Amino acid sequence: MSKQKRTAIEPTREENYAEWYQQVIKNADLAENSDVRGCMVIKPWGYAIWENIQRSLDVMFRGTGHRNAYFPLFIPKSYFEKEAEHVEGFAKECAVVTHSRLEDDGNGGLKVAGELSEPLIVRPTSETIIGASFAKWVNSYRDLPLLINQWANIVRWEMRTRLFLRTAEFLWQEGHTVHESSEDAMVETRKMLAVYAKFAAEYLAIPVIQGEKTEGEKFPGAVNTYCIEAMMQDRKALQAGTSHFLGQNFAKASGIKFQGRNGEYDHAWTTSWGVSTRLIGALIMAHSDDNGLALPPKIAPSHIALIPIYRDSEEKAAVMEFCDKIQQTFAGQFFEDVRVYTELDDSDTTGSERNWYWIKKGIPIRIEIGPRDVASNSVMVARRDMEPRDKQSVPLEEIKGYVLKCLREIQDNYYHRALEFRTEHTVKINDNKKFYKFFSPKNAEQPEIHGGFALSHWCGEIACEEKIKEDLKVTVRCIPFDAEAEEGRCICCGKASSRRVIFAKSY
Amino acid sequence: MSKQKRTAIEPTREENYAEWYQQVIKNADLAENSDVRGCMVIKPWGYAIWENIQRSLDVMFRGTGHRNAYFPLFIPKSYFEKEAEHVEGFAKECAVVTHSRLEDDGNGGLKVAGELSEPLIVRPTSETIIGASFAKWVNSYRDLPLLINQWANIVRWEMRTRLFLRTAEFLWQEGHTVHESSEDAMVETRKMLAVYAKFAAEYLAIPVIQGEKTEGEKFPGAVNTYCIEAMMQDRKALQAGTSHFLGQNFAKASGIKFQGRNGEYDHAWTTSWGVSTRLIGALIMAHSDDNGLALPPKIAPSHIALIPIYRDSEEKAAVMEFCDKIQQTFAGQFFEDVRVYTELDDSDTTGSERNWYWIKKGIPIRIEIGPRDVASNSVMVARRDMEPRDKQSVPLEEIKGYVLKCLREIQDNYYHRALEFRTEHTVKINDNKKFYKFFSPKNAEQPEIHGGFALSHWCGEIACEEKIKEDLKVTVRCIPFDAEAEEGRCICCGKASSRRVIFAKSY
Repeated sequence: MSKQKRTAIEPTREENYAEWYQQVIKNADLAENSDVRGCMVIKPWGYAIWENIQRSLDVMFRGTGHRNAYFPLFIPKSYFEKEAEHVEGFAKECAVVTHSRLEDDGNGGLKVAGELSEPLIVRPTSETIIGASFAKWVNSYRDLPLLINQWANIVRWEMRTRLFLRTAEFLWQEGHTVHESSEDAMVETRKMLAVYAKFAAEYLAIPVIQGEKTEGEKFPGAVNTYCIEAMMQDRKALQAGTSHFLGQNFAKASGIKFQGRNGEYDHAWTTSWGVSTRLIGALIMAHSDDNGLALPPKIAPSHIALIPIYRDSEEKAAVMEFCDKIQQTFAGQFFEDVRVYTELDDSDTTGSERNWYWIKKGIPIRIEIGPRDVASNSVMVARRDMEPRDKQSVPLEEIKGYVLKCLREIQDNYYHRALEFRTEHTVKINDNKKFYKFFSPKNAEQPEIHGGFALSHWCGEIACEEKIKEDLKVTVRCIPFDAEAEEGRCICCGKASSRRVIFAKSY
Repeated sequence: MSKQKRTAIEPTREENYAEWYQQVIKNADLAENSDVRGCMVIKPWGYAIWENIQRSLDVMFRGTGHRNAYFPLFIPKSYFEKEAEHVEGFAKECAVVTHSRLEDDGNGGLKVAGELSEPLIVRPTSETIIGASFAKWVNSYRDLPLLINQWANIVRWEMRTRLFLRTAEFLWQEGHTVHESSEDAMVETRKMLAVYAKFAAEYLAIPVIQGEKTEGEKFPGAVNTYCIEAMMQDRKALQAGTSHFLGQNFAKASGIKFQGRNGEYDHAWTTSWGVSTRLIGALIMAHSDDNGLALPPKIAPSHIALIPIYRDSEEKAAVMEFCDKIQQTFAGQFFEDVRVYTELDDSDTTGSERNWYWIKKGIPIRIEIGPRDVASNSVMVARRDMEPRDKQSVPLEEIKGYVLKCLREIQDNYYHRALEFRTEHTVKINDNKKFYKFFSPKNAEQPEIHGGFALSHWCGEIACEEKIKEDLKVTVRCIPFDAEAEEGRCICCGKASSRRVIFAKSY
């Protein structure tokens, strides 16, 4: 405490964005790396955010008629091989179980034993294993649509990992549905993408762009992949969710056939869609600042930190009684569909230290209660979306209404700030030189900071996409649904193009 | 439908208990075996029961100060080897990941590649991997107690599997806590066992006996293992939850040390405790009958099946409007802390078929609505705990109160029936011959049906325990907490004993 810090998090975003991200996580106590290669430990404050994401999405999925179920962790190698593009996409990085026992190795250690007749793959995604069940469940058009969701852990053997954004094991939900017709499956694919976009906007306070992936970026085995893309504070794009129209590819691979209304048998049409713990990475990078984590109230594990301040036991008794009154005021209260939680922080540290502790954890509201507040029957309320020293005196009888109003305002503020930031850093670019300059580092110390999202024309050729990727590490994030028809010239080769796409660097 | 069935489930419990169990699961559509050895698929109706178990336990765990977190799926072999008894207990049946890639084998197939430098074990339980994190988190007595819970999937390579009761992969929660003293850890161990007992009684409607496991039956690496034991309808015992006092064993293995109040460093004291999807097996076998699943309302995925009956479109309009009124009546209603859900079943089948469909699924209440009900402004209500043909006419304006009262009664009935059944089949036995007769099959066709729980004296010698196990497949289920001090003679060897234990066959 001897050194006067400029900000609670060092380095700042400007100084070193990647390290700032790690420090926000560390200071908010969200997660940490484990000794197991690429696997993270999600600590209680981080896991509670994931539980809130689950709870909110589950309500939305129930509303769209989906039901949760659970399928095996392991996929037999033979299942995995059935869809050629799919296996090509996932075989290079998967965890393979080959043995079922450990035995004494004769040197005081253990050796693997009990070799399996067929290796098992720890699911990197479950199309093939769920498809095997669906093939048994679906017989007639009367069984359709089949609308299933699974919450599960997933393993992809990533080489370079980063907490929440890219880890070998992660948590996600994966929706898997079966339909009678191509049209029905396409409607479902787009509907669930819209659910994700709504969830991102209303709960995570993150504005996203809905669009379609290019051939090169789509899910292995899908006919079309749709995505929601969000802008982070380093102006890079983060793919926050995907929804895949799988055509009949996986139905053919798994043998999902049904008798149609005309009496004929045909392969069904399937979709899959998912979001993962990556959303927590998006949440961190969309809203946090140089003082640490900032959490939209609708997804925060807790909402109000009560910080009692007193010098002796007499003051303590009065202050704690007052705190109890405030806690009672919020007990069982809801902010829209979210239950309001309070934290009473009576730790043996200074009021300032406790304030900073909760600022770094991103709690939306802090309330300090000292003897003077008790005497005046009012409290000092501070908001995470304001400056740390900004405090508002509020009479006790108004505290409930005031705080609930603040929670709504904070939620809205975060959304609008993120939207404003994205708008500011999204530019229509028609000129190749300007495009290259847009994506060049602004200075040598922050080589990652660049322009943001470029709305530019692209001819549709994979060669142009790859050249830009190689030159700038920039990819087509998506072809936005709301792109207007407009004649133009490809930003790379100059050939004719009829609409703009979003180019960006990405996570 | 040509053959007149005596019961909805065939065979009955009397005819073939094991097959009856499978048929109850199949008819209620709870789960099924997958093609992956020993791994089950939990279908929506079964998974919703698990979600309700999770939700209810989570509230209780929060009340006892525990927080959820998530730790890696994989355990490095070297961690696993650290606690000798532990590895001995789990090494014989575990899934071992040895490779990180699949490669073209040159014959159109794939072969495993990318051998890991250290094999990874898919967690069969997480003491060792969570211990590695705890060793970093705990430094001082101020960090204690550390109270963590994890919801996760677990793999144990069981050879003989049975849906819910014993599967290679299963879902569970595992609590892991760290304490300053042996006393604190022991208080925690017993407290969480009591939480399980309360949960089993109040939510699952299953009375359980709390007690301590013998040396031979305790968790590998634990100092003491406590358990809750329930009686199933075949009179066998099912261990429904365990809580382990781990002493300093795992703290030493993982290096969990802390500076105590006296300034000295010492190893901490830990506990672990868990319940799993096995509880669904217990639920099925405690309450279901020869007509299928029976679900206590507090854990049922849904509570009321509405069965509209009509002959033409005019009747349909009136009946469906009436159904809608009933659904509105229950929208947002709670039965204690449980939200009441209704199912409108307008399937294209007869009223009788739909009634039986819901009886087999165990829904607590069925309401039939036909044109006559609409005319009289009343409905026919049937309860799952009564005979299928018993129906009660209830005026529409009284339906809410009536159904909520029924839900409470059904919940209580199931508990009391299970308690009565257990009491009836629990016998104090002092004579060795009577003991052997008690555990002998009652007839050749049902070799499994026997007496039930025997409360008998045991000298404490493992030799006696093993002889009884070998002769009768009967084990000491637990030394009940409420066993009175009483002089007696060991049921096996006749030596002195000071209290009775529970002997039973078990799952």
